[in-house]
Amino acid sequence: MATIVFCSVNKTAQTTARRCLTSHLKKLSSAGESRPPSTCIHGNPVASLLGTRWFSRGCSVRFMSRGTAGRSASGRTRRAALALSGAAAVTAAAAVAGFLANANHFQRAEMATKVSQAAEESEQEGEILERCMGFMSLPVTNVGVLEERKEEMRTRMEMLIMETQADFCKALQVVDGGTFKVDRWQRNEGGGGISCVMQDGKVFEKAGVNVSVVFGNLTEEAARQMKSRGKVLKGKDGKLPFCAMGVSSVIHPKNPHIPTVHFNYRYFEIEEEDGTKQWWFGGGTDLTPVYVNKEDAFHFHNTLKEACDKHHLQYYPDFKKWCDRYFYVRHRGETRGIGGIFFDDLDSPSQEEAFNFVKSCSRTVVPCYLPIVYKHLNDSFTDEEKDWQQVRRGRYVEFNLVYDRGVKFGLATPGSRIESILMSLPLTAKWEYMHEPAKGTLEAEMLEVLRNPKEWV
Amino acid sequence: MATIVFCSVNKTAQTTARRCLTSHLKKLSSAGESRPPSTCIHGNPVASLLGTRWFSRGCSVRFMSRGTAGRSASGRTRRAALALSGAAAVTAAAAVAGFLANANHFQRAEMATKVSQAAEESEQEGEILERCMGFMSLPVTNVGVLEERKEEMRTRMEMLIMETQADFCKALQVVDGGTFKVDRWQRNEGGGGISCVMQDGKVFEKAGVNVSVVFGNLTEEAARQMKSRGKVLKGKDGKLPFCAMGVSSVIHPKNPHIPTVHFNYRYFEIEEEDGTKQWWFGGGTDLTPVYVNKEDAFHFHNTLKEACDKHHLQYYPDFKKWCDRYFYVRHRGETRGIGGIFFDDLDSPSQEEAFNFVKSCSRTVVPCYLPIVYKHLNDSFTDEEKDWQQVRRGRYVEFNLVYDRGVKFGLATPGSRIESILMSLPLTAKWEYMHEPAKGTLEAEMLEVLRNPKEWV
Repeated sequence: MATIVFCSVNKTAQTTARRCLTSHLKKLSSAGESRPPSTCIHGNPVASLLGTRWFSRGCSVRFMSRGTAGRSASGRTRRAALALSGAAAVTAAAAVAGFLANANHFQRAEMATKVSQAAEESEQEGEILERCMGFMSLPVTNVGVLEERKEEMRTRMEMLIMETQADFCKALQVVDGGTFKVDRWQRNEGGGGISCVMQDGKVFEKAGVNVSVVFGNLTEEAARQMKSRGKVLKGKDGKLPFCAMGVSSVIHPKNPHIPTVHFNYRYFEIEEEDGTKQWWFGGGTDLTPVYVNKEDAFHFHNTLKEACDKHHLQYYPDFKKWCDRYFYVRHRGETRGIGGIFFDDLDSPSQEEAFNFVKSCSRTVVPCYLPIVYKHLNDSFTDEEKDWQQVRRGRYVEFNLVYDRGVKFGLATPGSRIESILMSLPLTAKWEYMHEPAKGTLEAEMLEVLRNPKEWV
Repeated sequence: MATIVFCSVNKTAQTTARRCLTSHLKKLSSAGESRPPSTCIHGNPVASLLGTRWFSRGCSVRFMSRGTAGRSASGRTRRAALALSGAAAVTAAAAVAGFLANANHFQRAEMATKVSQAAEESEQEGEILERCMGFMSLPVTNVGVLEERKEEMRTRMEMLIMETQADFCKALQVVDGGTFKVDRWQRNEGGGGISCVMQDGKVFEKAGVNVSVVFGNLTEEAARQMKSRGKVLKGKDGKLPFCAMGVSSVIHPKNPHIPTVHFNYRYFEIEEEDGTKQWWFGGGTDLTPVYVNKEDAFHFHNTLKEACDKHHLQYYPDFKKWCDRYFYVRHRGETRGIGGIFFDDLDSPSQEEAFNFVKSCSRTVVPCYLPIVYKHLNDSFTDEEKDWQQVRRGRYVEFNLVYDRGVKFGLATPGSRIESILMSLPLTAKWEYMHEPAKGTLEAEMLEVLRNPKEWV
């Protein structure tokens, strides 16, 4: 095992990026356009990630989230990292859909007492325009509007999800060598999104990272769902203005020894008759390997645990269980993968601290996943292993189409962008009748773990 | 085009079959066993189908259902055909599940006046034991019990579905050269089924033909669903004994020029407090081509129309529309395929005549589909055409997992046989982000038809 530390240092890229800003903004100014990534900043993923280094030192997989890395690096390095980390945020239609759809459970993420370090996450977020430079596209909301209300949570969250999208896309572009196709889309009822998809790359069969930011008035059905979640909402003339946003991603690699990863972080805001706002956060990151690798599982879960522990020691154990419960393919009696964390309805202890927790989580996405990708990049595999991967992909499709609340809600909502919702499906999948791995095989070992979720940390 | 007439003449096979009966029954006597098809009757699909001939005469695709062929053939030929047609019936878990699950619509198949020829379908059904000889497996219900209550509709229907399964499986085995894997399974709560699957054959990527016969007491939820369908049911001490059975099949060929076919015929019976029985039939056959072929579409729909017209002139137009409405992938704005017929809740004008209609339908399965398979057996295809097939397979999966009531109900029902329900999924499928065929291509022509269902006859 190697100790890997992730940090960002990139002065050159920052200067280049600044120089390109004007033409970049011009190019992106028409919403709804469909175009390849700008050739300026993110058209050259290697250049834009020049400052990202993986340092291997020692023999235990330890991975620091950017927040952590930032704190331990010099001031100058840290500012550069922040400028770059402002690089991108993407919210998925599915993310927001999931947000609206998590209707039938009453569990709420609660924070009884907070852990003091959490305050450290509440760092300076930098200038809007400067941060936008590194995004995969202009944010959904007009930059002028974002500047005007830069203190509001909806702005801070939109910047975070755009940044998360860019950080992740760029890290994937570096390892794959391919580029993401970037589609901006608008929603007639208000808002829109940015879908980044890389298909049939060298490393990734299909990689999708979506941002969506939607607003309008809650439908009666959605309002009823809120009620069933324990939210009592008083609208004005039956109207409940809302704003929902999120970033969501699913990455399906080609090599069966590189696991599939999924994450989704989202924010919801609703305005009541008297002008008071109700708000909450949700999200999670989870891993779906084709074969069990305890080292990978430890690294993935431990990185999440470290991020959670900074905010509340109960977060990781609670949200880990919640994840195993949520990503469960009931008709197969299997979890979708080896889990991670999942939470919803997080509205305590304060908006600031809940946001800081979500920020910590979204900043662990790259350090959770990329080391695992690099580790298995050149693993050889057999036709049988590829076949088993395809069968597991079939189960992934089953979960997403049959159980995932976000997908179900998205498909049932008129005006949804179907391609963004279904980009979570793999490029290829397989259904073999009565497929059951022989006892003692690595495939059987994987099934055993899916049937009986383990503690990895 | 060629005029193709289908009829059965098989004296030798009949004699051979009779000789093998004893050992055949012995082999099959333990329910729940999983075994390859008996080497005696159905182990040699070519021998068992020796009497089935395809005659090509002329230049328009005209295909007669066996019932029709029987009427136009000599008496001896017809009797032989009947003895053989007793060959097989299989009911699917999914078929029955669909039956219980068709809850949210109120449309009912009604027969105002009958067409006189329908009476001709009410033919002699032959001896139970003799008919069982040709099945893919012993029926779900004990042969002795079937003999005892041979006049009852549940027995006649079980024989019909077993027969339909065998006829179809054998016809597919002949064209493919492969053999079906036959799995008998039991349902703890009562009943069971027979699943026949051929996977990765020469012609068929995945072919599944299922029979299920289940009984017990209706759950409260199911009883409520019945109520929402307009059925007022009075149970005894809250109990409503029911019996449901059906045959269902999905065939996914390898060659993209051979379409996928699906059919499902089912019967439901429920006993009220005072001993009166409510009953109804449902079913349908529909085609999902990858490319438009008007000749195939005409042949398929016309064969169904001929079968329907014998019973009521309104059946084909009504059930064709119903089919287009049912097999609709709403989030894509596309029908699953080019349709066929679909009906449910058929309980008029009499049980006898409704059964005869279902019999006519199930006997058109082979003449609807097999000529199309033979016609395109040696069609060459490109990688691009195969790719388009895989994308269409993805849509097939979307329909089956998101909308199909039978699948949804089956997955949600504890104790269902998942492998039988999901055998309808293709062996392989693909999801390409933003796949949209270029204007003027054959792929775009197919989409146009799926977006605007056509009249084919």
